[in-house]
Amino acid sequence: MADDAIHFWFSTGSTYTYLSVSRIEHVASTEGVRFDWRPFSVRAIMREQNNIPFAGKPVKSAYMWRDLERRAAMYHLPIKVPAPYPLKEFDLANRLVVLGLAEGWGKAYAMASYRRWLADGQEPGCEPNLSASLRELGQDPARCVERANGDDVVELYEAATDEARELGIFGSPTFAVGRELFWGDDRLDDALSWFRHGRLVS
Amino acid sequence: MADDAIHFWFSTGSTYTYLSVSRIEHVASTEGVRFDWRPFSVRAIMREQNNIPFAGKPVKSAYMWRDLERRAAMYHLPIKVPAPYPLKEFDLANRLVVLGLAEGWGKAYAMASYRRWLADGQEPGCEPNLSASLRELGQDPARCVERANGDDVVELYEAATDEARELGIFGSPTFAVGRELFWGDDRLDDALSWFRHGRLVS
Repeated sequence: MADDAIHFWFSTGSTYTYLSVSRIEHVASTEGVRFDWRPFSVRAIMREQNNIPFAGKPVKSAYMWRDLERRAAMYHLPIKVPAPYPLKEFDLANRLVVLGLAEGWGKAYAMASYRRWLADGQEPGCEPNLSASLRELGQDPARCVERANGDDVVELYEAATDEARELGIFGSPTFAVGRELFWGDDRLDDALSWFRHGRLVS
Repeated sequence: MADDAIHFWFSTGSTYTYLSVSRIEHVASTEGVRFDWRPFSVRAIMREQNNIPFAGKPVKSAYMWRDLERRAAMYHLPIKVPAPYPLKEFDLANRLVVLGLAEGWGKAYAMASYRRWLADGQEPGCEPNLSASLRELGQDPARCVERANGDDVVELYEAATDEARELGIFGSPTFAVGRELFWGDDRLDDALSWFRHGRLVS
């Protein structure tokens, strides 16, 4: 099947996804590639698969924060680590992105809520991040939360999670080119290479 | 403390380490950088930290093999996946590298045994990989195994593992520049950047 986009599967709540959410629109414009933004619940899938990357692993967690900090600096992104983790309102934060993508403010919301999380230490889906990020985009927080908790948004989010699971996605971010999966912000170049050439070019 | 090398901490048994072991001498010569090869027991540390990346995780495992296959092709390395995993004789394979580094054939042995594992499906530390890889380098397998099981080699290997643990290393490969750690073959460029500039340059 011909496909004109790289599918960007992501979950607010994944720390490394900060890098992708923040830089992908720039990559799209400089590389002339379209990304299809697909929020889903990576937590649901990770629970099913007993995939617990950081909880109870202090040495690996400390590395993750340092690695993220160094890579954010490379991309000139503000960051202050460690940030609150894991998130309490993971699903609401993602459903707000689902709603926002349908209404045209989803990418900007994802970027704003991620920046408040990883630069300012405010959890996505919780106050003050929630209202501040929405108001920055001219959206009414009460209306958005009501809509994000509505059946239609919940169903879209669950359907996206089912689709991700069916594709074999188990982590965020994942870049999908047809059925080829590239997991991690650090695989974006591989995804671009596959999209253009059908193989990796070093 | 001034340091004239990037410390390459690795364990035979890690699948992605195939990429590093196979390409790092080429990187050393093209980039004009020295790597200090440090075999250690990543399995001992992962057990202590309850860090189980693939066992019982079929979806993530399938991705790992595909990702490794694509990246090996990018580096023009032969590969046939999935290969036997996890390894039965993980520690012996690593102690043979420890011995070989002391005697001058360790890098070539690591490359040869990894190639037989990931291109030919033969486990390192077991026959026929063990004898074939050693004979290829002009070494007598019986002598090497006896030496690799001797107290002095066991002590060197355990001391290296203790040193890795103290540095905060939890996975293989890890590139250490002073106390900055870069985990994964895909962080080699970051390690090179840090070694030269003290920061990541994109």
